Amino acid sequence: MGDQVERRWSTPREIRQAARTGQWAQPTRGLAPGYIQAGLAVVPSQYAFDFLRFCVLNPQPCPIVDVTEPGLPEPRVAAPGADVRTDLPRYRVYRYGELIDEPTDIRAYWTDDCVAFLIGCSFTFESLLVGAGFQLKGMSEGRGNPIFQTTRPCVPSGPFRTDMVVSMRPIERHRVEEVTRLTAQVPVAHGAPVHVGDPAELGIARLDQPNWGRPLPVDAGEVPVFWACSITAEAAGRAANLPLFIAHAPAHMFVTDLPIPTLAGGDSGAASDGA
Amino acid sequence: MGDQVERRWSTPREIRQAARTGQWAQPTRGLAPGYIQAGLAVVPSQYAFDFLRFCVLNPQPCPIVDVTEPGLPEPRVAAPGADVRTDLPRYRVYRYGELIDEPTDIRAYWTDDCVAFLIGCSFTFESLLVGAGFQLKGMSEGRGNPIFQTTRPCVPSGPFRTDMVVSMRPIERHRVEEVTRLTAQVPVAHGAPVHVGDPAELGIARLDQPNWGRPLPVDAGEVPVFWACSITAEAAGRAANLPLFIAHAPAHMFVTDLPIPTLAGGDSGAASDGA
Repeated sequence: MGDQVERRWSTPREIRQAARTGQWAQPTRGLAPGYIQAGLAVVPSQYAFDFLRFCVLNPQPCPIVDVTEPGLPEPRVAAPGADVRTDLPRYRVYRYGELIDEPTDIRAYWTDDCVAFLIGCSFTFESLLVGAGFQLKGMSEGRGNPIFQTTRPCVPSGPFRTDMVVSMRPIERHRVEEVTRLTAQVPVAHGAPVHVGDPAELGIARLDQPNWGRPLPVDAGEVPVFWACSITAEAAGRAANLPLFIAHAPAHMFVTDLPIPTLAGGDSGAASDGA
Repeated sequence: MGDQVERRWSTPREIRQAARTGQWAQPTRGLAPGYIQAGLAVVPSQYAFDFLRFCVLNPQPCPIVDVTEPGLPEPRVAAPGADVRTDLPRYRVYRYGELIDEPTDIRAYWTDDCVAFLIGCSFTFESLLVGAGFQLKGMSEGRGNPIFQTTRPCVPSGPFRTDMVVSMRPIERHRVEEVTRLTAQVPVAHGAPVHVGDPAELGIARLDQPNWGRPLPVDAGEVPVFWACSITAEAAGRAANLPLFIAHAPAHMFVTDLPIPTLAGGDSGAASDGA
């Protein structure tokens, strides 16, 4: 299925168009490799400063990719011409913390008072890891990664306060240093792991009982590696009991026009100017 | 002089204390190497979202180190217990874009409506470069680096719109790749250069006529290397004609308690947990 999609809609713009026209309402994992994917959060403008501050002060779970002007649904940095109200495959709409709808389009909820945030997600670094030859069980078995609520508090901001949410991937022990180095280069996709090894250090009691998603086995020779997860932003938004809070449906991301940047120096576009 | 200071006040806390008590009202270049230094911007709360969005969408000139809660002068992430109203050596106060004061303390101007932003600065990466054996003329000759207004527009946000301001350092041609790689690892200090080589590409007519600071010669075998500069934030704040805008005086920075992070993977504190 994924392969078919990639063949039919190979560019971010085509994928967004397919979401907009209702031809694609499925997860975006593995689509448009090489481009940043992002989760969505929409809040009323009176909460926009506190929410943006929450993201900025918690950059590992909530790396900001773009922020719209109040009332304007176009993410001009991430994808000029796109529309965050229609270009994700599916959404979740909350009122006062309660899930009230999971539509494929949020035009009915959007007002001139809405501010949209695009928040980096791990699909971005997964495409890098696959390129580096990692066999990610959550991708190869098509079932995603287990997600856990930790007891590690985020820096609070106004009504937004929550503990960090993390995703777990089993990694071969001898490649932990490599996976750490690779993901550290992509802060827009949560950066380096927040923890390697002992789940109890994060307040996670059982690896076989994730809070979201299905468990993945940690086999002999592997260790559990935990990355900050953008579900943290959704948890913060829900807990704030706002009159309106909209997020992407899990794994149904916004595919941006931004190539994945690396911080490895030599291949930075800006730095190679005239050098 | 710098050496004397370092001996007397060796920790960030001691330097801030010296600024607070009026014992130190000079530039902070070269002080407390290994710690992030940051410029200051203070805006009324009604502009806080637009200004934070400006910084987030222009991360090279305006990397955010901390943002205070409205009315609270304590930067809890960057330096718990510190006070941005007193702990910088000198400030600049603007009303409607006009410079009205350059005090060593801003308690007289601070109100419950103020929000303070700490913005990363190049002193942070200079200490890394010196550690890597670079001879920086602006440091060794004690006169700072020339700063230029470019014609490269920043992403605007509300009333904040300006072209990028850059600093220039002459670098030996054979070390340009190395300096690029090193600074790319420190996005909190402007990251990789925005341009290497031709000043005209940035709209800079003459290297010997900087907009701020004194010129530095680019000798045979050297090329001019340009980094985004946090004076961009001050330019944006001035141009917005706010009823109140406060910045640090040039080179008079806030010295944070945060060690300079590297993105080189293996030595990230978080990632080395239990690995």
